[in-house]
Amino acid sequence: MLVERFAENPLITPDDVRPSRADYEVIGAFNAGAVEYNGETILLLRIAQRPLDKPADVQIAPILNPDTGEIELFRKNNNDPNIEIPDTRGFYYKSKLYLTSISHLQLARSTDGINFTVDPNPAVFPKTPYETFGIEDPRITPLEGRFVITYKVVSENGICTALMETEDFKTFHRKGIIFCPMNVDVVIFPEKINGCYYALTRPVPMYLGPPAIWIASSPDLINWGNHKPLLPPRPDYFDSSKTGASCVPIKTEEGWIEIYHASDEKNHYHIAAALLDLDDPAKVIARAKIPLMKPRAGYETKGFFSNVVFACGHTRKNDEITIYYGASDESTAAAKTTIKKIVSTLQ
Amino acid sequence: MLVERFAENPLITPDDVRPSRADYEVIGAFNAGAVEYNGETILLLRIAQRPLDKPADVQIAPILNPDTGEIELFRKNNNDPNIEIPDTRGFYYKSKLYLTSISHLQLARSTDGINFTVDPNPAVFPKTPYETFGIEDPRITPLEGRFVITYKVVSENGICTALMETEDFKTFHRKGIIFCPMNVDVVIFPEKINGCYYALTRPVPMYLGPPAIWIASSPDLINWGNHKPLLPPRPDYFDSSKTGASCVPIKTEEGWIEIYHASDEKNHYHIAAALLDLDDPAKVIARAKIPLMKPRAGYETKGFFSNVVFACGHTRKNDEITIYYGASDESTAAAKTTIKKIVSTLQ
Repeated sequence: MLVERFAENPLITPDDVRPSRADYEVIGAFNAGAVEYNGETILLLRIAQRPLDKPADVQIAPILNPDTGEIELFRKNNNDPNIEIPDTRGFYYKSKLYLTSISHLQLARSTDGINFTVDPNPAVFPKTPYETFGIEDPRITPLEGRFVITYKVVSENGICTALMETEDFKTFHRKGIIFCPMNVDVVIFPEKINGCYYALTRPVPMYLGPPAIWIASSPDLINWGNHKPLLPPRPDYFDSSKTGASCVPIKTEEGWIEIYHASDEKNHYHIAAALLDLDDPAKVIARAKIPLMKPRAGYETKGFFSNVVFACGHTRKNDEITIYYGASDESTAAAKTTIKKIVSTLQ
Repeated sequence: MLVERFAENPLITPDDVRPSRADYEVIGAFNAGAVEYNGETILLLRIAQRPLDKPADVQIAPILNPDTGEIELFRKNNNDPNIEIPDTRGFYYKSKLYLTSISHLQLARSTDGINFTVDPNPAVFPKTPYETFGIEDPRITPLEGRFVITYKVVSENGICTALMETEDFKTFHRKGIIFCPMNVDVVIFPEKINGCYYALTRPVPMYLGPPAIWIASSPDLINWGNHKPLLPPRPDYFDSSKTGASCVPIKTEEGWIEIYHASDEKNHYHIAAALLDLDDPAKVIARAKIPLMKPRAGYETKGFFSNVVFACGHTRKNDEITIYYGASDESTAAAKTTIKKIVSTLQ
């Protein structure tokens, strides 16, 4: 068995999280960054909320007003001739996309990595004009004595990646947009390599090119360049449709192990691994011939958006890796594996 | 009259350019970067070529093989069930886009800015794995004693922007991809501002956000950050659909004048201006209430892709500005205006 799902899964569900306002409900507690800090496992969860008691015949998009800091509701009737409703996650009005929920980041803490207590209040709430539709899918990299966090920012300007830093998971410092729309699923390597910082990025191109893992480097974490495609989708594999970085790369003797996510033609998400050169992570040494995980458990195959296992974080104890992953865009689950088992999936 | 079209327009047509191979034809000589160099006006043209004698019942995409440096032909029959043909510029095969021509860059020179002689051979030919579908739409910035050139690179990986440098327009040094897919129409400011290089960029986002002019800064021209949306499309204006930078920003006492291109709901392209703060070009001081130009002359309203005026370069003599622009994705034309007339269009 390549991975062992925790018997306690899902570890965190929307019911475990108090909404930020009494008139809202939490519909997602998922896609968490993970890190060991002060003897605890810290998860920085994406919490998706929406207004309670939505009438069945309207669509509502909660949108931050960056001037007031308040969330305002954009409402349209289902029978409005300008509306289109592709699925539960959003709707189009006059060809513009709106989301039916808005996400923020909230901490959960555990001493055993299994039983988590979710903080009562958000850690980071949408604030800037680039975050009006929400902030999502954080990845936490321990780096040079503090933590750098990449996160997805969503607004009417586009979907892209911003950076923040924290030393204590109490105060978070925003550092601005580091990759233009559309670019998501960015993870930063946990150390400099030959004098440069490195990141895996996931541009989502228009017209030409698949959504694929690229690599970039930086002198200072703010300015990025030397962009190169790295792990494109492969026809006839489980990762034939899209690839994107998931966890912060894991340093091993063999190379950097990247645990990534990949979808197939049916839009089913998988978790898989690739091995990158220690001294030049723009070189791929090996890549998964089979995935580590695919949706199988009930909480993975049914949910807000079904058939998704999507990791944003892991923890490591020696050879043992715990992958924390979002299940069906709704809950947080975990699975254990080992470096050895991961390497066995590579070709 | 805001601009005066040259009586000699179009200045350069495909017939003025020798194809790079005898079995090819030139179908476009357009979207040129422009600069004054050694007493001459230099245009760095985008030259689009395709194989001669294409049978009417097939689609052919010329694609560079980066290992051999040769262009190979990807051929599909029009009645193949996997083919879709939206317009003359390209076709889809199994949902992947292919272009019916491949572009390279070629110099034209003039002592009067009107009568140009096109060099017999390409200046820069597609070469890298990121250029297999062609290189396009260069912008030339004179900077610190040499010329930095942004250009669009097109391949199956996506459409994005790379950088090259030259000191003499004989040898060109590639510097790699500076903005991930999809990002095009990048122009670099001609001097550092408060210690940073600046560029206008044009991300083309998926799902959310319009194709719009953004701004970024850099310590070294290679690594870019501090991305911010700058000049988005405006509903009910001539630039309601897309905006993109065109010419290298022009320094004036009032601020940086950016001559940009913009399309409306009919996909008709316009040339217009905006004024940016001299000390902080991320601040918009004023923006066009009316365009400087819209397609009107025959060579602008009819061609390979009709109703396009699209500038990539300009030259300046005191208050006088000559805009060199692509007409209908086919030929090169020019129009004169003045700083004063440009400022009169701003509100």
